[in-house]
Amino acid sequence: MEKVAVIGAGSWGTALALVLADNGHDVRLWGRRQEQINEINTIHTNEKYLPGVVLPAGIVGYNHLKEAVEGVRTLLLVAPTKAMREVLRDLVPVLDEPVTLVHASKGIEPETYKRVSEIIEEEVPAEKRRSIVVLSGPSHAEEVSLRQPTTVTVSSSAIEEAEFVQDLFINQNFRVYTNPDIVGVELGGALKNIIALGAGMSDGLGYGDNAKAALITRGLAEIARLGTKMGANPLTFSGLTGIGDLIVTCTSVHSRNWRAGNMLGKGEALDDVLKKMGMVVEGVRTTKAAYQLAKQEMVEMPITSVLHDVLFDGKDAKEAVDELMKRSRTHEVEDVSSLISDGLAE
Amino acid sequence: MEKVAVIGAGSWGTALALVLADNGHDVRLWGRRQEQINEINTIHTNEKYLPGVVLPAGIVGYNHLKEAVEGVRTLLLVAPTKAMREVLRDLVPVLDEPVTLVHASKGIEPETYKRVSEIIEEEVPAEKRRSIVVLSGPSHAEEVSLRQPTTVTVSSSAIEEAEFVQDLFINQNFRVYTNPDIVGVELGGALKNIIALGAGMSDGLGYGDNAKAALITRGLAEIARLGTKMGANPLTFSGLTGIGDLIVTCTSVHSRNWRAGNMLGKGEALDDVLKKMGMVVEGVRTTKAAYQLAKQEMVEMPITSVLHDVLFDGKDAKEAVDELMKRSRTHEVEDVSSLISDGLAE
Repeated sequence: MEKVAVIGAGSWGTALALVLADNGHDVRLWGRRQEQINEINTIHTNEKYLPGVVLPAGIVGYNHLKEAVEGVRTLLLVAPTKAMREVLRDLVPVLDEPVTLVHASKGIEPETYKRVSEIIEEEVPAEKRRSIVVLSGPSHAEEVSLRQPTTVTVSSSAIEEAEFVQDLFINQNFRVYTNPDIVGVELGGALKNIIALGAGMSDGLGYGDNAKAALITRGLAEIARLGTKMGANPLTFSGLTGIGDLIVTCTSVHSRNWRAGNMLGKGEALDDVLKKMGMVVEGVRTTKAAYQLAKQEMVEMPITSVLHDVLFDGKDAKEAVDELMKRSRTHEVEDVSSLISDGLAE
Repeated sequence: MEKVAVIGAGSWGTALALVLADNGHDVRLWGRRQEQINEINTIHTNEKYLPGVVLPAGIVGYNHLKEAVEGVRTLLLVAPTKAMREVLRDLVPVLDEPVTLVHASKGIEPETYKRVSEIIEEEVPAEKRRSIVVLSGPSHAEEVSLRQPTTVTVSSSAIEEAEFVQDLFINQNFRVYTNPDIVGVELGGALKNIIALGAGMSDGLGYGDNAKAALITRGLAEIARLGTKMGANPLTFSGLTGIGDLIVTCTSVHSRNWRAGNMLGKGEALDDVLKKMGMVVEGVRTTKAAYQLAKQEMVEMPITSVLHDVLFDGKDAKEAVDELMKRSRTHEVEDVSSLISDGLAE
């Protein structure tokens, strides 16, 4: 039995806390809002984020960060990428000893193009961290909280730390695999949100499954193209954190990014969509970061590029999707093989 | 303008006939049942297979094979794999000159393990064929008939013949790509039906999108593993006829194979399911063929293997899916990298 502090009491943080509690660990779930923490500790629900789910007794809510992390060896960070630096700056002063920092956030920072593990590396001094581990994969929080079968991947540059985290989480319903390619695991998780926006947009425009399948297929190719250029193993994009997560995010109504894209496809303005969502839509900022990054690295990312124009330059959504469907290339292998040749050229 | 005979007036044959007619070609749609052909020629519908769709005037129904193919340079074969040899044996005696044989059927023959292009090669003497071309990709017939955006791939050992077929079909809604890897294109299209049965079964058991995404991801890995062993280019499985078609077949209620798997997951017996479907479920025979082939080639195909046991040995569907989710492997890369190493070992 381990003590684990889960930093971030949204849907995913709460669902992962539940997995840890099911495995008999002592779980401290930290959130900023006092009333949410009271709800968790008194009636054992987190209704706004996981409606209808009763939390196991092993989860205790905390409102004070210092109390939450006291004597804890493992921290699970589940803040939106945008809030990550702020959370870490609050966290560092209250850490007494080096901790294993697991994160389950999917995004890239605009302007700096940092992955979440790089943000952690920058913000947490080396003497306060044992290791950084990523947890990612095709996993809607709602299904995890219902103990539906789910598979995820953990990744770290230190294999024994990845295996330690694997042991913490693995159980009959929640299968955990390891993969040493932290760059590929993080980029797959972040970049798929862009494609999910596009898939939602296609559905919102009234296009069918044929169009969406084409978008997802091409989306995977452009994710892998950028990813390999950034140092990822191209094979990672064929796995759970690549195509697996891409499929679940693009084809499920649970997905926030799909929902946001869907509203955009129906003609709503970005500001209105973000207001309606009420939760963070990682794909919007990730589109900006990936667009800049693709330019810098001179990688062709047609889906990211037209989505960027829809989100930030007022391009018409229908025109954008039609443009993607009607690209002039006619040899399929050009698309796919550029993926590998980019990888091999490194 | 070309004369094209479409052999097979089911959903897919009729939808492809409609694309050709939209492009101004003279389309002869052949079917065995006189009343269906009468319906096509008098009220311009094929209600059983494409409900609600009015066929363009360019499509003329034929009941006699000899009349349908007279003076035609291009034949499109859209029969179920099981009926293909029979159709070809009727066809050969009525062919006057060498024709381009395009097929759009997705299956492998049990016992012989032949792909459809190999069956055509065996049954049609060399002097009666100009070339064999495959058309495949993520494409529900219903959406194609509604002119929804769709992308497909055509493949042939003769590139100029693939380009000729590309020109016949391509239009604003129906995008056609070429890929020289005929083995990969045919195997991707055939083997995905196995995984669609499994995905339907998982859904029928009440499992969620997380479980299905894991199944599809692993399914792609085992398809690619067998495919590369059979001589396919592993990259083809990352394209439209691989992951693209796999996604559309596993996530759409239009898919027959998904629907059949869904009923199996709900506890119905195979015979009852096949009776209810009333149409061919290619995945059932393909599972048998792939299971035998995987044994012969010593390729690990866990999903195909448990599905085979459910379909033909009375294994319990829940037990089968649970077994797949709880496999003992814990390093994800083992799964994925075996794909490439199999490919490179050839």
